[in-house]
Formats: sequence, structure tokens, C-alpha cells
Amino acid sequence: MSAKTLTENEVLQKIERAFRRQGIGAAKALKLSIGDDAALLRQHAKHEEILTCDWSLEGTHFLRDQHPADSVGWKCLARAVSDIAAMGGQPTCFLLSLALPASHTGRWFEEFLGGLVRASRTLRCPLAGGDTTKRNEILINIMVAGSVPAGRAVLRSGAKPGDLIFVSGVLGEAEYELHKLRASKAQIAPKSIELRRHLYPEPRLALGQWLAEKQIANAMMDLSDGLSSDLPRLCAASGVGARIMAAKIPIHGNTRALVKRRNERLQLALHGGDDYELLFTISPAKAKRLASKFRGLPLTCIGEITGSRNILLIDETGRETRLAAAGWDPFRGASQKR
Amino acid sequence: MSAKTLTENEVLQKIERAFRRQGIGAAKALKLSIGDDAALLRQHAKHEEILTCDWSLEGTHFLRDQHPADSVGWKCLARAVSDIAAMGGQPTCFLLSLALPASHTGRWFEEFLGGLVRASRTLRCPLAGGDTTKRNEILINIMVAGSVPAGRAVLRSGAKPGDLIFVSGVLGEAEYELHKLRASKAQIAPKSIELRRHLYPEPRLALGQWLAEKQIANAMMDLSDGLSSDLPRLCAASGVGARIMAAKIPIHGNTRALVKRRNERLQLALHGGDDYELLFTISPAKAKRLASKFRGLPLTCIGEITGSRNILLIDETGRETRLAAAGWDPFRGASQKR
Repeated sequence: MSAKTLTENEVLQKIERAFRRQGIGAAKALKLSIGDDAALLRQHAKHEEILTCDWSLEGTHFLRDQHPADSVGWKCLARAVSDIAAMGGQPTCFLLSLALPASHTGRWFEEFLGGLVRASRTLRCPLAGGDTTKRNEILINIMVAGSVPAGRAVLRSGAKPGDLIFVSGVLGEAEYELHKLRASKAQIAPKSIELRRHLYPEPRLALGQWLAEKQIANAMMDLSDGLSSDLPRLCAASGVGARIMAAKIPIHGNTRALVKRRNERLQLALHGGDDYELLFTISPAKAKRLASKFRGLPLTCIGEITGSRNILLIDETGRETRLAAAGWDPFRGASQKR
Repeated sequence: MSAKTLTENEVLQKIERAFRRQGIGAAKALKLSIGDDAALLRQHAKHEEILTCDWSLEGTHFLRDQHPADSVGWKCLARAVSDIAAMGGQPTCFLLSLALPASHTGRWFEEFLGGLVRASRTLRCPLAGGDTTKRNEILINIMVAGSVPAGRAVLRSGAKPGDLIFVSGVLGEAEYELHKLRASKAQIAPKSIELRRHLYPEPRLALGQWLAEKQIANAMMDLSDGLSSDLPRLCAASGVGARIMAAKIPIHGNTRALVKRRNERLQLALHGGDDYELLFTISPAKAKRLASKFRGLPLTCIGEITGSRNILLIDETGRETRLAAAGWDPFRGASQKR
């Protein structure tokens, strides 16, 4: 940590230097990035544009003394890009709004930029601009612009009764890792493999684009707050209900091995946040032709869309209960998870 | 203030209700606004897109107990739209990232939305989406997307030696009003006329668009941090210097009447922030044909661009001094104004 206080111009210069190698050429669309009043870009004429933004706030989304700065940098961008994946698009560029304590303009800031630059390169989403200021807490807001062929974006509102409900990957692992991180109370090493899903989520861009461009999915969203919170949002937007089968919800082998009680594993998968997997619905005819994996990523049918407005969970004995949202809701105060 | 804690969905519903009357039709470009993973828009094929974002943070950009919530709502959008004006563009839509204490989801929030909706309507910049969360402090980030005919955006980097330097309107009034507000220590009434420039700035959209579309200005930016901070940024981006004349800097009649000492008035105009006027440079040939007003807004030549890298101020006796940046720099800590 540096005791020296940087000026706003010096903070901007550090950001510029960290991203210099990206080159404006990294995104042909980007005509002008940091250094002017605003960024300038030229969108593909036959595409629609996607705009999304996400808070990443100290204390709310990460812990200053526990989360590695490298992971904070990676995850703040990955989380916002996940919304682009959820529409079936590809990212064009992003804006970084950053408020930092003077004490964090040194090493913390460099490690943060390291993770952010790596995410930017991996997700092909160059920096286009932003706003910086000083603050006693670390506040981040990321805006991502993306692009999707006109008419191909997959909305939350397209689910139809009879559609089958799918999720990509496995659920609950990021939440399980967060519990481990909280329990450890120590500073976590950057690039920690055992907390990889929590620290370095990977937006499902390729899957989202494939489902959109081939017009396979009727409705789609990303799972950021937990299935029990997000599925009702998709259903509400579509004016439908859902029946999901507890036994079908995909849980990672690690979680199976480490979380002994079956019910606990299920709770993690139902209510755990930060998975950034895709939740999508497909007509039964198209679902028949869907492979069980997309480029190695499991695609699992967990239930079906119904014409009622209820969200029902069928347990392993066949008993039907209403699924209560118990995922992440900042305004409800403390999470209501067990 | 409401003691009841709203859920995130209820906060979103309040925002949706406040903006419902705007209709998606308010911006033909906007295909999908709040309620999905992201916003979706179709940009004009022959236009380039402008993206910008701005923090508005309690304690840094406004005072929770003194600034009327209505003004906070107006100003957070107006400030960001001013960057669109500075490129010569028109706004398309905006994203609202909002973090609120539970105690401020009642009356404060409604007044905030009142000012924000009015700014949105006045500036023709509909809400397209955003992100909300709970926080002990009021944090706002606004992202605005805009549009400008391809190749017509006016950058900071286009100033040439010999160009004349112009500013729109008058400078220093918003800063003077801020001093008054700070001194009063009372809660300020919404729509207070005497603090109008500080509470309800008006981005110079029509002027910016005219200067861009007619290809009149070589370089342009908006004055948000004060002339002494912003002019050096324009000069640095263009690789030039400047000579400005103290006697020519436009100061409002109110300020003249109320601030007795001439030097104090000049300091306000040189270093005061939050003017949101446009600073632009024009070739001498085009400057000859420029009227002294644009739709009633004064346009004043304050100096010229030079080939050196210095920013010089010529005082009323003809003495030349280097102009030191003393405007707003959050990372420099307390403002260095007198």
C-alpha cells in the first residue's frame, strides 16, 4: 500500500497504462476510448446494442480484507458481462467507475487492474472510459455495452407453458466457496484454485450466443442471485409458472463430496448466488435435439414451464412445495438462507 | 421518510412507476428497457454512439441533509448528459445505478425520482435500466448513451495553434451558489431560484450539436471541474497551450453584484466547478462569423490556442502568469481554492 496520494490524473494514467496494450483495434467498433469527455463507437449496422451495469461494492459484493484485489478486478467485469451473455450477445466495451481510498491507489490498485485487464482480454471487452473519485470505501460500477444480431436477443419474457427449463453448468458451488471464505477470515491468495468459482466466475458468452443465434432458447437470463430468486423473475416477465425437480438440479462433485447433508447441498444450489450460469427455456421439440453438453459445459433440464403462476419444487419423494425466494436481495437485509 | 424497508423488487417497481409515462416510444432507438437482464437499443445506422458515466456520491457530489433530493435527481443525470453535449451529440437513454439506505426508500426516494424524471423528460433521455442495492450511504452512478452523426463528434484533441478559445454562458456562478449553500447549513428548498445554477445545471445540448453538425468547433469539452483544471486537459489532449485574458472571462451579473472583490469573482470563474458550460476552440476565420449569442446564450472569446505547452493567464494590467489548476480534483483531497 502506498502512503503517497495520487491525483485524479495519476489514477487515470495508471488505468491507461494498464490497458494500453489492448489497442483500440481490440474492438473495431471502438473509435475513441479513455481521455475525452466520453467514448465513441460505431455499432454494427445489422446489430442491436445491449447496455447493462452492475455495482461491485466493498462490504456488499466483496470484502476489502479478504477478497484478493485481482479477483475483485476480474469479477466486477465478469459479473456485468454475464448480463450480455444472458441476452445472447457479445461484449463491445466497458466503462469503469471507480472510487478508491487514497491508501488503495498503490499495490491494491495495481492488483485490481491486473485482474480487470485479464478479464477484459479474456472476455474481449476493452475499456472505453469511466469516472474516478476518492472515497473512504472501494466502490465500483461497471457498464458494459454489447451487441447482438437484430431480433436475436433472448429476453426473460419469451417462456411458454410446456417449455423445458435448462441450466448450464452446476449450481451452488460459488455460494459454498463464499461460506468457506467467510469462515476462514484470512486474506485469500489471488488465483486460489479452491475458490475459483466464487473468485473468478466465467460468463457463458459462447453458450448464450449459440442459443440466441440458432434461435434455440425462448427465454433466458443469468443466475446471479440464486435459482429461487431468478426463476420467479423469468416466470413473472413471461407471465408463466414453473415446476422444477429437486433431484435434477446439477450439483458439483466437489460440493457433493464436501457437503455431507443432501438437503444442505440442495439449499446451496437453489438459493446460492454468484453462479453466473444461464437459465433458459426451450420448446420440447427443440429440447429433444439438444446435446447434454455444449463445448464441455453440462446442460441440464431441471423442469418445465407451466400455465399457472406458481413456482413449484418437486422433492425426491414426489412431494410438491412452493419454492420461496431465498436468494440475494440487498434490500431485505441479511440473506435469509439457512 | 419511511420506516418500512422495501425489497429490491419494490424499489425497482417504484422506479418503473415513476418512469412509466415516458413510454418506450420516447426514444425510438430503445427496444427494451428496465425489467430484463439488460437494455436493448437500435442505433441510427449513420451515427456513432457516445458512452459516458458519472458518479454522484453523497458527501462528495452532494450533501444528504442540505441538497434537496429533487435536485440530486436532476443533477446526476444533467451532469452525465453534459458529456454528451461536449461531444456534440444527443442523448439516447441512460442507466441508473443506485445504492440507498433503507431509511431513504420513502419520501427522499420519491423526490429524487421526481427530479430525475423531469431531467429525463427535459433532456429527452429515457431510462433504459440499471442496478439497485442497499447501502448506508446514497451512491449514484449514471451512464448515458448518446448519438452523433458519424465523423461529426468534436473531441478534446482537435485544437490548433491560432484557434480562438470560447466559452458559453457565464462562469463561477454555480461555485458561488455552493459557497452560499455550505454557509447556510440549512436544508435547501427544492427548486430554489437563487441556487438554480448549482442545483439544476442545464447541459448545453443544442449548442454542442450545432457546433458539431456545422463543423464549427475544432475541439470541445464541458466545464465540470473549473476552467483552470479543464482547459489544461483540452490543451494536453491537443498537444497545444493557451493564453487566456482575465478581463474577458464572462461573469454573471449576480456574482458581480454580490461578490465585491474583483479578484474573488475571477477566482470563482477560473476555478469554480459545476458550470457545465462548453469550452471550445474555433479557427479565426470561422470565429469571425460566429454571433455573440446562440439562442440567447452568450458565446465569449476568452483567449487563443498557442503552439507552446503553457497555459497562461493575462491579467487586467497585461501581466502574464501561469494558470495553476485549482479546480476540483477528488484525489487531491480538499479543494485548493482560496
